[in-house]
Amino acid sequence: MKTLRIAVTPGEPAGIGPDLIVALAQQVWSAQLVIFANAQMIAERARQLNLPLTIIPFDSDDHQPAPVGALIVQDVPLDGTVIPGTLNSEHGHYVVETLRLACEANMQGHFDAVVTGPVHKGIINQSGISFSGHTEFFAHRSNTADVVMMLATEGLNVALATTHIPLAYVSKAITQERLHNVIRIIDHDFKTKFGVAQPHLFVCGLNPHAGEDGHLGREEIETITPALDALREQGMNITGPLPADTIFQPKYLAQADVVLAMYHDQGLPVLKFKGFGASVNITLGLPFIRTSVDHGTALDLAGSGMADTGSLRQALNKAIELANQKNE
Amino acid sequence: MKTLRIAVTPGEPAGIGPDLIVALAQQVWSAQLVIFANAQMIAERARQLNLPLTIIPFDSDDHQPAPVGALIVQDVPLDGTVIPGTLNSEHGHYVVETLRLACEANMQGHFDAVVTGPVHKGIINQSGISFSGHTEFFAHRSNTADVVMMLATEGLNVALATTHIPLAYVSKAITQERLHNVIRIIDHDFKTKFGVAQPHLFVCGLNPHAGEDGHLGREEIETITPALDALREQGMNITGPLPADTIFQPKYLAQADVVLAMYHDQGLPVLKFKGFGASVNITLGLPFIRTSVDHGTALDLAGSGMADTGSLRQALNKAIELANQKNE
Repeated sequence: MKTLRIAVTPGEPAGIGPDLIVALAQQVWSAQLVIFANAQMIAERARQLNLPLTIIPFDSDDHQPAPVGALIVQDVPLDGTVIPGTLNSEHGHYVVETLRLACEANMQGHFDAVVTGPVHKGIINQSGISFSGHTEFFAHRSNTADVVMMLATEGLNVALATTHIPLAYVSKAITQERLHNVIRIIDHDFKTKFGVAQPHLFVCGLNPHAGEDGHLGREEIETITPALDALREQGMNITGPLPADTIFQPKYLAQADVVLAMYHDQGLPVLKFKGFGASVNITLGLPFIRTSVDHGTALDLAGSGMADTGSLRQALNKAIELANQKNE
Repeated sequence: MKTLRIAVTPGEPAGIGPDLIVALAQQVWSAQLVIFANAQMIAERARQLNLPLTIIPFDSDDHQPAPVGALIVQDVPLDGTVIPGTLNSEHGHYVVETLRLACEANMQGHFDAVVTGPVHKGIINQSGISFSGHTEFFAHRSNTADVVMMLATEGLNVALATTHIPLAYVSKAITQERLHNVIRIIDHDFKTKFGVAQPHLFVCGLNPHAGEDGHLGREEIETITPALDALREQGMNITGPLPADTIFQPKYLAQADVVLAMYHDQGLPVLKFKGFGASVNITLGLPFIRTSVDHGTALDLAGSGMADTGSLRQALNKAIELANQKNE
């Protein structure tokens, strides 16, 4: 088995992303992690954290993982000084450039996955770049029409039919076409990236009690059930729509490869409650494997040494696991 | 301390309510449980379950709890035969009459609480009685304008700002007036029924990430935050609005007496995941204490002896705990 090569973007330089990757450099990794970031900024953060760090410039001919206490860095220029905890709109272009380079490296097939740290959407937009999130950025750059956000923790995967939109828009955003796209992407990625021969999806209704036969809303009858029935006829293994407050019980979770929630706050509170500090965000539908932390930039913790590495560690491990599965 | 007297309505006779109360009669109770049901139907269910049962007709002068293996019953007439698992619209009036009598007994002050088993709304409506649920029925019969549904499990109470309405209606249903009413009821009941001197409420936003400063919806800015600020000025201890996917973390739950979710599927999936089979529904705002099971009639299990008594046991214990607190 060849050594995997994983692109890592620490994201916002004033946030905890650089802290986390410096901390995680102090352990052994089976894959070669290549950090897309400014080398000087990373070295400076290591000094601030009093952690030993050797910077090794990335050499595409060398596939060895970095030794403990070192990071392989694809240097990305960054103008000006980075002060941990203080956002600077002059660094917006730098952040987006790290993502662009990591995406390109994956699209060219030189890498097995990309793992992203937290960015700050507001400061990127203030720098004059329209940016709505990693997921949308990678989808656009890789010419992918539709993607699916999934969060994973030990024993539970939750995918979302809609993501970061106001609650009042959710009902209109749930269409048969969207459900077809989302479920086909999930089914395809679980087969090709997760090594599951016949993925079993459990799908939530939109309304309380999954609409209670139409008494609490008709979207289940008019949209969700017809969409699921059509996909079942195509051979997919789908259970639902089920009420969101009973779908997360052991007898269902034991059978489910993934639970599809109709919207953000229907699915993620349970997932984060179950896996707090150890859940990972996975983008399905991209031409490459992409995982991410499940938290923000935590500006108040940057440079303090108090940031929790749990989610980035999980994101790296998950990317390695998926890349190994794909290569089998 | 006087012996508490609790009214218990097993609810739908073809469901598991009678099974559960017969099973729970096999243990010692510190309070006097008075079952509002048809005595013959209860005796017959005990025979079907092969459980010993002595029926003691309710005598208001006797405050002793029933001995193990016996139930004190306030007999309610029931025409026709009950077949476990088979709904009969002729029994709709009987079910509603058990609720009416239990409500009246509590309103007259002869009882310390009412605990309700599951009813089947559909069959009651088929019998010609307009019935939208226990909560609404008790509110109407006790002349209470507004009530709040709360579910409780060990270590977590979740109250709902809206309950059984379509998801598409939720945004419009969240008004400053509704939030004022809901939070005042919660604050009042935690002080008077739960014995909490200064209740600390944690409140969810409506939108993902609690609206992310207006980027994902404006209800937090325009409705929720102003309502919470006004109530804080009245001295209430309120934290929020916070994102629903981060509010359920240990550091918050350690401080929270109750989490207020804006809608059903934002709060109940976590609560039921945490407490499955052992959560209890509590109606706040009524002039008396009312708790309930968190499950339905489970017609397929009626008469089988397989029904799980966990939730009714919790509902009884919670009612006894609250009534003791109130009497202190």
